[in-house]
Amino acid sequence: MSATTSSPVTLQTLDVPGQPTPTPELEDLYRGFERELLIPLWTEIGDLMPADPRPTATGHRWRWAALVELARRSGELVPVGRGGERRAIALANPGLGGRPFATPTLWAAIQYLNPREDAPVHRHTQHAFRFVVEGEGVWTVVDDDPVAMRRGDFLLTPGWCFHGHHNQADTPMAWLDGLDIPFAHYTGSTFFEFGPDEIADRSSPARSRSERLWSHPGLRPVAQPEPRPSSPIAAYRWEHTDAALADQLALEEEGHPGVVEPGHAAVRFTNPTTGGDVMPTIRAEMHRLRPGARTTTRREVGSAVWQVFDGRGRVQVGEREWPVERGDLVAVPSWAPLTLTADTGLDLFRFSDTPIFERLHADRVRLEGAST
Amino acid sequence: MSATTSSPVTLQTLDVPGQPTPTPELEDLYRGFERELLIPLWTEIGDLMPADPRPTATGHRWRWAALVELARRSGELVPVGRGGERRAIALANPGLGGRPFATPTLWAAIQYLNPREDAPVHRHTQHAFRFVVEGEGVWTVVDDDPVAMRRGDFLLTPGWCFHGHHNQADTPMAWLDGLDIPFAHYTGSTFFEFGPDEIADRSSPARSRSERLWSHPGLRPVAQPEPRPSSPIAAYRWEHTDAALADQLALEEEGHPGVVEPGHAAVRFTNPTTGGDVMPTIRAEMHRLRPGARTTTRREVGSAVWQVFDGRGRVQVGEREWPVERGDLVAVPSWAPLTLTADTGLDLFRFSDTPIFERLHADRVRLEGAST
Amino acid sequence: MSATTSSPVTLQTLDVPGQPTPTPELEDLYRGFERELLIPLWTEIGDLMPADPRPTATGHRWRWAALVELARRSGELVPVGRGGERRAIALANPGLGGRPFATPTLWAAIQYLNPREDAPVHRHTQHAFRFVVEGEGVWTVVDDDPVAMRRGDFLLTPGWCFHGHHNQADTPMAWLDGLDIPFAHYTGSTFFEFGPDEIADRSSPARSRSERLWSHPGLRPVAQPEPRPSSPIAAYRWEHTDAALADQLALEEEGHPGVVEPGHAAVRFTNPTTGGDVMPTIRAEMHRLRPGARTTTRREVGSAVWQVFDGRGRVQVGEREWPVERGDLVAVPSWAPLTLTADTGLDLFRFSDTPIFERLHADRVRLEGAST
Amino acid sequence: MSATTSSPVTLQTLDVPGQPTPTPELEDLYRGFERELLIPLWTEIGDLMPADPRPTATGHRWRWAALVELARRSGELVPVGRGGERRAIALANPGLGGRPFATPTLWAAIQYLNPREDAPVHRHTQHAFRFVVEGEGVWTVVDDDPVAMRRGDFLLTPGWCFHGHHNQADTPMAWLDGLDIPFAHYTGSTFFEFGPDEIADRSSPARSRSERLWSHPGLRPVAQPEPRPSSPIAAYRWEHTDAALADQLALEEEGHPGVVEPGHAAVRFTNPTTGGDVMPTIRAEMHRLRPGARTTTRREVGSAVWQVFDGRGRVQVGEREWPVERGDLVAVPSWAPLTLTADTGLDLFRFSDTPIFERLHADRVRLEGAST
Repeated sequence: MSATTSSPVTLQTLDVPGQPTPTPELEDLYRGFERELLIPLWTEIGDLMPADPRPTATGHRWRWAALVELARRSGELVPVGRGGERRAIALANPGLGGRPFATPTLWAAIQYLNPREDAPVHRHTQHAFRFVVEGEGVWTVVDDDPVAMRRGDFLLTPGWCFHGHHNQADTPMAWLDGLDIPFAHYTGSTFFEFGPDEIADRSSPARSRSERLWSHPGLRPVAQPEPRPSSPIAAYRWEHTDAALADQLALEEEGHPGVVEPGHAAVRFTNPTTGGDVMPTIRAEMHRLRPGARTTTRREVGSAVWQVFDGRGRVQVGEREWPVERGDLVAVPSWAPLTLTADTGLDLFRFSDTPIFERLHADRVRLEGAST
Repeated sequence: MSATTSSPVTLQTLDVPGQPTPTPELEDLYRGFERELLIPLWTEIGDLMPADPRPTATGHRWRWAALVELARRSGELVPVGRGGERRAIALANPGLGGRPFATPTLWAAIQYLNPREDAPVHRHTQHAFRFVVEGEGVWTVVDDDPVAMRRGDFLLTPGWCFHGHHNQADTPMAWLDGLDIPFAHYTGSTFFEFGPDEIADRSSPARSRSERLWSHPGLRPVAQPEPRPSSPIAAYRWEHTDAALADQLALEEEGHPGVVEPGHAAVRFTNPTTGGDVMPTIRAEMHRLRPGARTTTRREVGSAVWQVFDGRGRVQVGEREWPVERGDLVAVPSWAPLTLTADTGLDLFRFSDTPIFERLHADRVRLEGAST
Repeated sequence: MSATTSSPVTLQTLDVPGQPTPTPELEDLYRGFERELLIPLWTEIGDLMPADPRPTATGHRWRWAALVELARRSGELVPVGRGGERRAIALANPGLGGRPFATPTLWAAIQYLNPREDAPVHRHTQHAFRFVVEGEGVWTVVDDDPVAMRRGDFLLTPGWCFHGHHNQADTPMAWLDGLDIPFAHYTGSTFFEFGPDEIADRSSPARSRSERLWSHPGLRPVAQPEPRPSSPIAAYRWEHTDAALADQLALEEEGHPGVVEPGHAAVRFTNPTTGGDVMPTIRAEMHRLRPGARTTTRREVGSAVWQVFDGRGRVQVGEREWPVERGDLVAVPSWAPLTLTADTGLDLFRFSDTPIFERLHADRVRLEGAST
Repeated sequence: MSATTSSPVTLQTLDVPGQPTPTPELEDLYRGFERELLIPLWTEIGDLMPADPRPTATGHRWRWAALVELARRSGELVPVGRGGERRAIALANPGLGGRPFATPTLWAAIQYLNPREDAPVHRHTQHAFRFVVEGEGVWTVVDDDPVAMRRGDFLLTPGWCFHGHHNQADTPMAWLDGLDIPFAHYTGSTFFEFGPDEIADRSSPARSRSERLWSHPGLRPVAQPEPRPSSPIAAYRWEHTDAALADQLALEEEGHPGVVEPGHAAVRFTNPTTGGDVMPTIRAEMHRLRPGARTTTRREVGSAVWQVFDGRGRVQVGEREWPVERGDLVAVPSWAPLTLTADTGLDLFRFSDTPIFERLHADRVRLEGAST
């Protein structure tokens, strides 16, 4: 969305095909539009209706090391409590006019808790998840179900679930928060409520109750037969994700289908009550590239954020390419051509707004090259 | 969305609960955030996560008479042709920073064609409709199917259908265009293509082929059994809409259910292949109030635009109320309380972005009062 | 289903490939099976798992003139009232062992009411419809909504709706009843309740309330937004069906798509809340053939019953062909090759159990020839 | 379905309310019906439209020990090969007229393979599964994917997948086969094809390829994003089922929801691409009762077969109750009241035709008592 918003109709469009000849009468007409809060299509159509998506958001890489250092200093200077609610520091896409939005629809932030610190209980309609690139010791308590957070885990807080976090450890912990805050903000669909002052259940089980009910492959409790908008699984554990990716690559070696493309395994986190995405607005996946693998260049409608989980490689978005390593984050705008290259074996977490477009029949994908 | 977008993090938030104490160290930290393109949640949470939706778009009324006069003058000064594509003049919501957006998701414009004039053929992924508050003589040709436009008709151009218009009459014609341009623009999902230079079929049948196949109540062609994302009916004719509304009010008089609330009939335009909304992002309805009727005050997630089709009354959005008459348009932001009052019998056309929220399980409605 | 059901295991299968050599030990084993209520697959597999469906139901034609005459005599001898409930006389497929089943899943009967006679109110989970090949004067009252029955109308009584009929005329009336009685009987899913002793609303409106709410093309009442398992339209009127078929043939003449195949128009009756079939187990359609047209020979999984509405022609099912005229009925078993030939223009009503197979992903169609 | 099918219309119905008075004219009319292949509703309605389902199938128990012994003797006398295809011996419900049908819709059989023996490759539209109550050593090869069979495993062969079995062990193996053969037979929707003469892949991996791709909780391969009619998981392993049941009972002890009712845990095997049942016509579940637990008496539309996996208890169907132990099977007709009582801890496998009724909106459940 354009950051310069003044003077909606100007005469600078003179020479553009399809534009009227500038005259005093035309100028007068345009002033009339302004008085009546009107704007003609013919001056805006190039911006509004390009041949292909032309987002103002840009591809950008953030270094995890820098984020962690700033988060650590925030841990010294900024308390966590009611009002501020979370010590979360969000990626601000350079094309989005200084808003804390990784893309027009997605929020991505590093969240940081000091040893023995709490983040207070609240809920909101925005859908949230956590992804843990390193560390452990925090439990996020989702609707009174304590959920351990450990490296590699993907953890859900679907919209309107109460949740607070508490660090049980003597070390600080930082992780990635992902939400659909920008989308909800833009569309005016945000509700928020404070929860109780105290986290009710401070126990620290290795598995959440949600996992005990729902994380058995292909099985669901007979007592809960209905589909749900969001997944009931609060934690997708690294051991399962890792095994699934390893299995795909092993199948590839044996000559069987399964991988996305040669040397590139990927699993999607899903809602076991529907087989679809974990939450209505957010898709989440884990990708694994063999050392040296390079993905087919791909464009798709909708934006995404990638985080390196392990290994080193390069991420190319359009004309720009960045080296990446553990924890680094890259925002990928809609329809931007994306290519991943693995120097070592490379594991990447990805989240995107694709479910929005699929549900609205507006999804499109274009593969532009061939993998090596 | 905030129009002032500079200086994302400031120290003006000092006294807000949950904010850290301003110190040189904090100032230094905030400068570090800016350097790294980061923004903390704790300074933004009030804007991003309000208790209820707090859209920057505002309620506003546009007078049809003023729109028609400006469109007429545009007809004199602005040609229609390749490049500008359409002589369409869009409502610019005063809260949206000078963009041609009636609401954050919806485009609403008056389009105007001089006698015997053409608007060239193109297609785009944005979904479009026309609603005719007065006049006739134009045929919109959708995927080579000529569709007559007459007062009261609601006409579809679903995304990616080629379409051009031509005025067969010796009088100009103006109508309402509705599209999801702002939503597609914001989310970066816009594709556009020029069509052939000439409109292929310039015949002027009273009924389009789409109506002959699809506008028989409860019947569908056996040869086309699949559901479609958008309705195959190109024109919903006023005679049917009028009869449906009259039937609801007659049933109410006889003591049977059917109306929305006392004195308030309403029909939704639907996709006969699914029973759902006409297009993935747009809901369209026609409402009829008896003289003197007043609707229950209603808030809902998502924004809408209303146009008076006939009669006189008042539209209240939040604290503001406007008298309205034929053709007048009112933008209603998300969650704004809306009340309609009919002085005479009052027919209103409404379109909204509700399908987006329903498909994402983010829809909410709150009825706040009781109708009189 | 085989009508001879005794002696499940015999030694007559000696020479069949895959069968064991008959010996006293084998005979002894088979007696052991019988004692324990067991039957081996190997003796039954030819019947149970043929290469293609091999139904015991057969194609058969019933003459409407004969049905009407027997119904008239029943009108003299058999009262209508509680217990017997309906003066309905069902087609008994010669392959189904003397049960009143037109096919394994479908019931088709002529129902007959004398002048001024009532059929009492009841309800059942079986889905029912009426199709009127001639006559008028009866109102069927469905959940207290009086629905006029006239030649060409297709009328619904979805499962568990209370319904009774009363003849307002001084002439008798006969019509076709279609239900899923055999399917419900076979699967053990039948519930039944008597209604009040008297039909509550004996008024005789030309249009039912259901039509006034729901029979406007592409429109639905805003007050009733949910999908429903069965169509809320109680009556699909002949004028609409006739116009839709005429439109398809006219489009064909103009060179546009719409018909099923050359000279063969067809519309499906649908549930406007879903775009799908009128009731969960029953598909209903109206077909129109131009004089001289001949359909492609078609097999499909699932059975159907056809009734000639107007004109004369021939119906071929497998090796047999019958001449047909107004009112004649033909049962078509699953996977039987069907060909229709029109001597005059030919209108045919069709109902089938196809929705069962589509919902279970068991539908298949094979087109075997080409139409002339 | 009634086994006595001759003489459809008789005069024995004289005294039934709603039946006509027997007279020579009536007798003559009834003979007319027979000549024209017609049967009146009024003589059949009590059978066809009872107040509640009145299936002819009955509750029955089969002893596993007897089945295994007969299967063993079949292993001596009956070869397995082309034509007979399988050494499978089916339960024949005593109410179903000597057909090899456990219920009107479900087939349940013991299948038996001698050491080193093969069952040849074929495919059919009927959906099939295996459940292993004891033993191991057989691999079922489903679309060339070898799937190990071990005690407690639930294994799928969805319709139209090629499959053959081979016993790699020096001991025979027997297991339960479940299919929808009776339903497919009744509705005439059966297709069958022989496969290659030899099983292509005779390897014996511990995990099938399908499990490696699909049996990771909440994860799916990105390369295969579409929903499927049947589950892609070929084997649901006992270790997962057992853990899920144990987790439910542990949650119950801790005071959290999850079990069906006190002392009664249950999981449903599901299709991970939809969250629904494993195959379109078959539901499969595993139930675990604590020692001494007793289920609420339950009726539901649709029929089921239960097999004891471990422990001892009693199964009551209507007025009859049977003691059961490992391997014993019980058929439960539609709407028959079912109560389970556990003497020891009791694990039971259950399969049913419920998906058919749910998809047709004909499902009903009635709970009649309270568990102890």
